[in-house]
Amino acid sequence: MSTSTTPPDAAAPAGRPLLVTMGDPAGIGPECVLQAFHRGALAGCVVVGSAAVLRRAGVALGRPAMLAVLDGTASRPFDGWPDAVPPGSLAVVEPPGLPEGLDALPWGRVDARAGRASALCVDTAAGWVLDGQAEALVTAPIHKAAWAAAGIHDPGHTERLQALSARGGPLPPVRMMLTNGELSVVLVTIHLALRAAIDALSTERILQTLQITDHAWRQRGLPRPRIAVAGLNPHAGEDGLFGDEEQRLIAPAIAAARSQGLDVCGPFPPDTVFMRARHTSVRPGAFDVVVAMTHDHGLIPVKYLGVENGVNVTLGLPLRRTSPDHGTAFDIAGTGVADPRSLEAAVRYARGDAPRGR
Amino acid sequence: MSTSTTPPDAAAPAGRPLLVTMGDPAGIGPECVLQAFHRGALAGCVVVGSAAVLRRAGVALGRPAMLAVLDGTASRPFDGWPDAVPPGSLAVVEPPGLPEGLDALPWGRVDARAGRASALCVDTAAGWVLDGQAEALVTAPIHKAAWAAAGIHDPGHTERLQALSARGGPLPPVRMMLTNGELSVVLVTIHLALRAAIDALSTERILQTLQITDHAWRQRGLPRPRIAVAGLNPHAGEDGLFGDEEQRLIAPAIAAARSQGLDVCGPFPPDTVFMRARHTSVRPGAFDVVVAMTHDHGLIPVKYLGVENGVNVTLGLPLRRTSPDHGTAFDIAGTGVADPRSLEAAVRYARGDAPRGR
Repeated sequence: MSTSTTPPDAAAPAGRPLLVTMGDPAGIGPECVLQAFHRGALAGCVVVGSAAVLRRAGVALGRPAMLAVLDGTASRPFDGWPDAVPPGSLAVVEPPGLPEGLDALPWGRVDARAGRASALCVDTAAGWVLDGQAEALVTAPIHKAAWAAAGIHDPGHTERLQALSARGGPLPPVRMMLTNGELSVVLVTIHLALRAAIDALSTERILQTLQITDHAWRQRGLPRPRIAVAGLNPHAGEDGLFGDEEQRLIAPAIAAARSQGLDVCGPFPPDTVFMRARHTSVRPGAFDVVVAMTHDHGLIPVKYLGVENGVNVTLGLPLRRTSPDHGTAFDIAGTGVADPRSLEAAVRYARGDAPRGR
Repeated sequence: MSTSTTPPDAAAPAGRPLLVTMGDPAGIGPECVLQAFHRGALAGCVVVGSAAVLRRAGVALGRPAMLAVLDGTASRPFDGWPDAVPPGSLAVVEPPGLPEGLDALPWGRVDARAGRASALCVDTAAGWVLDGQAEALVTAPIHKAAWAAAGIHDPGHTERLQALSARGGPLPPVRMMLTNGELSVVLVTIHLALRAAIDALSTERILQTLQITDHAWRQRGLPRPRIAVAGLNPHAGEDGLFGDEEQRLIAPAIAAARSQGLDVCGPFPPDTVFMRARHTSVRPGAFDVVVAMTHDHGLIPVKYLGVENGVNVTLGLPLRRTSPDHGTAFDIAGTGVADPRSLEAAVRYARGDAPRGR
C-alpha cells in the first residue's frame, strides 16, 4: 500500500497480492482478466477463480495464457507466492469447493452454478483480505440473477462484502465512490427511486457520508481531503426558493463535519460543482471529491467523458475493494471484444497507483 | 437564416441584423458585447442599448470602439443599415425612452434605472424581431432584482419574451435548451425544487417538450432530429424497481411522439445517455438532442466541460432567441476580465452558424 502517510518499511508484509475475482464465468469477467494480464496490467495480482474458466477465456480471445495455479486449500496460500509463479505466467488460486464443469457453461446465460462459483470466489478472496493474507480485492462483475438462482440473496458485491466484514456483528455503513482520472464522486443514495432518495436524505446520512469519505481519503494518504457537497435542488435551492433540503439537511451536516475538523464545503449548485472539481492536465480541480445526494447527479458527470477508466470503490469496508464500472455484458461475453480498461483502472486504484488517490 | 431546407434566395430580406441587447448596464453585458466586437464576433449585429454605456465599457476594457448610432425612433431603423456603419464601427441603436445617466451608475449594484433600461432594450429589440425587421435576438444578462426594483415582475427574459410574443393572447409554451459544441439538452422542468419538479412531470408536459424540441430543430434545418429522452430514476427505473415515472409518464409521451412521426427514443438511464449523445471530433453522438426531466440532470453534463461555449436557447417562441450561459457577474463588472465567449457562441447559434444546428 503506497501512501504518503505510511513509510514503505511500515507497509504491508512484502509480497501480499492483490486478489482479482474472475466474476461470473458466463460473463465478460474472465476475458477482461485475461486481457488485462496480456496487457501487463496484473503485476502483483493473483486471480481467484477457476483455471478452466480462464483457459476457456484464453481460447475465446485467441490468446491463451500460462497459468500458475496456487494451492487454495493451503492455510497460507500466498506466503512466498511470487516464487511459485514463473515469469510470464498468470497466478491463479482456486477456492476450495468450486463447482465442476464451469468451462462448459454457455456464454451469456444466467446459471446457478455460475452464481455459486462467482460468490464463492468473492467470499474466499474477501476472507483472505480480511485475514491480512492479501492486500486488497478487485472484483470482476457478477450477475445478480445468477446469484439469486444459486440461492444467494445479496443483490451485489457490496452487500455481500458488508455481511462478510460484519462477521455477525452490525453491518458497517458503506458508500459507493466512482472515480476516474478527473473526478471522484461519493453518493449519499444509490438504488432508490428519485422520490425515495429525497425521502431518504437526512443530516445523519449525509454526515456519515462525509465521515466515510474523509476517512477513506485519509487512509489513501491525503491528510485533509477537500470535500465539496452538491446540493439537491436547482441552484442548491437558491436560498430556499426552490426547496429547503439544503438549509434543513445538508448545511447542518456540513457544519457538523467542519466542527469535526473535516475540510468540507457547500452545498453548491449541482450543475457547476462537478465542473469545478474536475482535474485536467492543465487545471487542477478545486476539490478532491464531490459528495452527491443522488445516483444520477453524481454518475452523470463521472461517466460523461466515457466509462472506460471508471472505477467503483466501496468506501467504509474494513478491506480495500474496487471493481470495474461495468457489468457482465452477457451480450458480448465470449466474443473477446470486451474492454479491459476499467478493470485495469480498478487494479491500479486498489494498488494505490493513482496520483493523489485519483 | 441559413438552413438546409431554405434555399439562400428565399432567406430573410438581405441585411436584416441580429439584435444584441446590452443587458444590465451595471453588469458584464456591455463589456462582453464590446469584447465580442473587438474579437470580430459581431458581424451582422446591431447592439440595442445605450451608446454612453458602451463607451464606458470601452474605457473599462482600455479599448474603446467607434460606434455608429442608428436612429431608434425611425419606423424602420434597419433598412439599409450596413451603409450607415463605417467599416470597423459597432452598430448601435438606442431604444426611444432610455433613461439618462446610465453611464454614471456604479458597477455591480442593483439599480432601478438599470433595470428599466435593460428591460426597455429587450422589449424594443423583441418588437423589431417580431415585426420582421430583425433576424433574431441575442440577450446579454439582465439582473432580476434590478427588474424588480424597476417594477418589472417578470423573473427573466424568457417570461418577458413569452408575454411580448403572446400579444395579449395565451402564452406560448416554451422550453429551455442549453447547447454547446458537443451536447444539446432540453429541459422538461427548470426552476422548481426537485420534489416539485417530479410532481410537475406529466405525459402532456413531456410530449409538449418533445414537440417543441422537434419543431425547433426542424426549423433549424434538421429534417428529422434524433431525440433521446433521459429517464428520471436511477437506471431509468430498472423496469419499475426504482420508480414508475418512466412507465407511467415518460414512455407514453415517447409513444405518442413516435406516433406523430417524431424520431424519439428512450427513456434511457440518465447516467449514460448524455455520454452517448456527446459529439466529439472523433465520434459523432448517437443523438442530436437529449430531453431531460430535471434542471440538473440536463445541465450537469452540458456544463461539465466548461461553460465558456454554452448557449441558452429559448425554444417555442415565435422569434429566435439565444443568450450566453451566465449572469451579470456583478462581482467582476467593469474590470474587463469577463469572458465574451459564451456571448459569441450565442451570436453564432442565433445566426445559424453551428454545424447541424449545434
